[in-house]
Amino acid sequence: MLTHKIEEVRANVKKWKSEGLVIGVVPTMGALHAGHASLIKKAVETCDKVIVSVFVNPIQFGPSEDFDKYPRTLEADVELAEGIGADLIFAPSADEMYGEGQRLSNDTLTYVAPPFFYVNKLCGKSRVGHFDGVCTVVMKLFNITQADYGFFGQKDAQQLIILRKMVNDLNVPIELIGCPIVREESGLALSSRNKYLNEKGKEDALALNKILNNIKMCYNKGVTDISALKETAFQFLNEAHELEYLEFVDKENLEDKEKADDNTLVLIACRVDGVRLIDNILLK
Amino acid sequence: MLTHKIEEVRANVKKWKSEGLVIGVVPTMGALHAGHASLIKKAVETCDKVIVSVFVNPIQFGPSEDFDKYPRTLEADVELAEGIGADLIFAPSADEMYGEGQRLSNDTLTYVAPPFFYVNKLCGKSRVGHFDGVCTVVMKLFNITQADYGFFGQKDAQQLIILRKMVNDLNVPIELIGCPIVREESGLALSSRNKYLNEKGKEDALALNKILNNIKMCYNKGVTDISALKETAFQFLNEAHELEYLEFVDKENLEDKEKADDNTLVLIACRVDGVRLIDNILLK
Repeated sequence: MLTHKIEEVRANVKKWKSEGLVIGVVPTMGALHAGHASLIKKAVETCDKVIVSVFVNPIQFGPSEDFDKYPRTLEADVELAEGIGADLIFAPSADEMYGEGQRLSNDTLTYVAPPFFYVNKLCGKSRVGHFDGVCTVVMKLFNITQADYGFFGQKDAQQLIILRKMVNDLNVPIELIGCPIVREESGLALSSRNKYLNEKGKEDALALNKILNNIKMCYNKGVTDISALKETAFQFLNEAHELEYLEFVDKENLEDKEKADDNTLVLIACRVDGVRLIDNILLK
Repeated sequence: MLTHKIEEVRANVKKWKSEGLVIGVVPTMGALHAGHASLIKKAVETCDKVIVSVFVNPIQFGPSEDFDKYPRTLEADVELAEGIGADLIFAPSADEMYGEGQRLSNDTLTYVAPPFFYVNKLCGKSRVGHFDGVCTVVMKLFNITQADYGFFGQKDAQQLIILRKMVNDLNVPIELIGCPIVREESGLALSSRNKYLNEKGKEDALALNKILNNIKMCYNKGVTDISALKETAFQFLNEAHELEYLEFVDKENLEDKEKADDNTLVLIACRVDGVRLIDNILLK
């Protein structure tokens, strides 16, 4: 069932809670692909009732980012989510989420602000305010759905670590389940933003996965020096690529690693033909 | 029953929820007085189960404020709260609330940040970061107790308005109940900080209530000019008083009023013999 209204979600949740049912939420921005499908599938397996939210959240986009251009495919999203077994698709308007005509700024709205040390690096460095927007909307979705489990993709690894930190710091009564990255056969990590790529762009985009796989292979052969591992990346980059970062951090707290080890998460962000793509791999 | 452990609160809450009971929470910093007692009484009347938290929250005190000196009277607090009918007194350590050895800063912790327009005035102007600390700890307490109702005193009027805004903005599934200010027979608003006052200080402290009552009387006689109303305050002030603010704001959103009206909240903060006291009155 599709709803656009918070009160309708609450009414369903209240009923389900009174029946002792376990609720899962899968927060998405829509344009659902097989990556999202894997989250919904996991949620359906784990929970009695599953809510999929579809909301392109304005407060997590910067002024020069792709909020307007971001793909919106609600009809197909509903079909996909219901096909897998989702019970409720919650697709609110911005007015429904933030109040009609509400100015969207921290002058006028309460925000959830993740720790500076978790935010001021990787994607947060170029996307100022992004993770404040993410944490705020996810906290709202957790409160609206009162879900027992929340499902997130490992592809947005920094986001998942920051959300785990939020849940821990604010004692949110929910358990977060991280799900593995889903890839095309070519190795390209699925992303709603892949829709911006043409055929050549998709070819060029394979570099991200190749770089990460090659780093893991080198690590498995015994290379732990991070400068050396980083240097192996350049063979995969050409004039189509604009590397934003390639970083080695702790998988729990995002602290920079001095040497690569089994708890190291390697993250990459790269523009390919102007489209910003991310990927990551765990070295273990 | 007294507990210091989050897990023990959660275990009780889980049991109560499974029985369909309505839960209330009364967040306090302890040193309970008749003002708190009125909140607990209201909670006991409204809810099936009542949790009173007693926690002097370090992150809402500035470096030069009275965190160390703040009165701590846990044994008496437990007796008072249980005497009124509270079911659980939750008195955690800072380590229990924020994690052992955790650095308490927004570099390392997730905060709930209320809107700048609500914070950058009245008490928030002199107490920088105070309301971030309040919102963060109250959100934690709401999440730990999963209460249906939260009880707060109207004496901390700015706090209550900011918490209502937080609940609304973040869709927290709780209803906040504001309770009237409790006063000594003399008119002095009850406050844990009154313990810092000697006899003469208590006498001087009556000025706050006198100023507010006099303003309301003048308003009732038809004076709506705020400058004129403010000027009536000075007759009550002497060298023992250091006026911090006397402001006329909207009772819902704290916006400055241009003329006094029925929705105007008049707030005062004043140091008396160095002790910072606050009070307020609604003009209607």
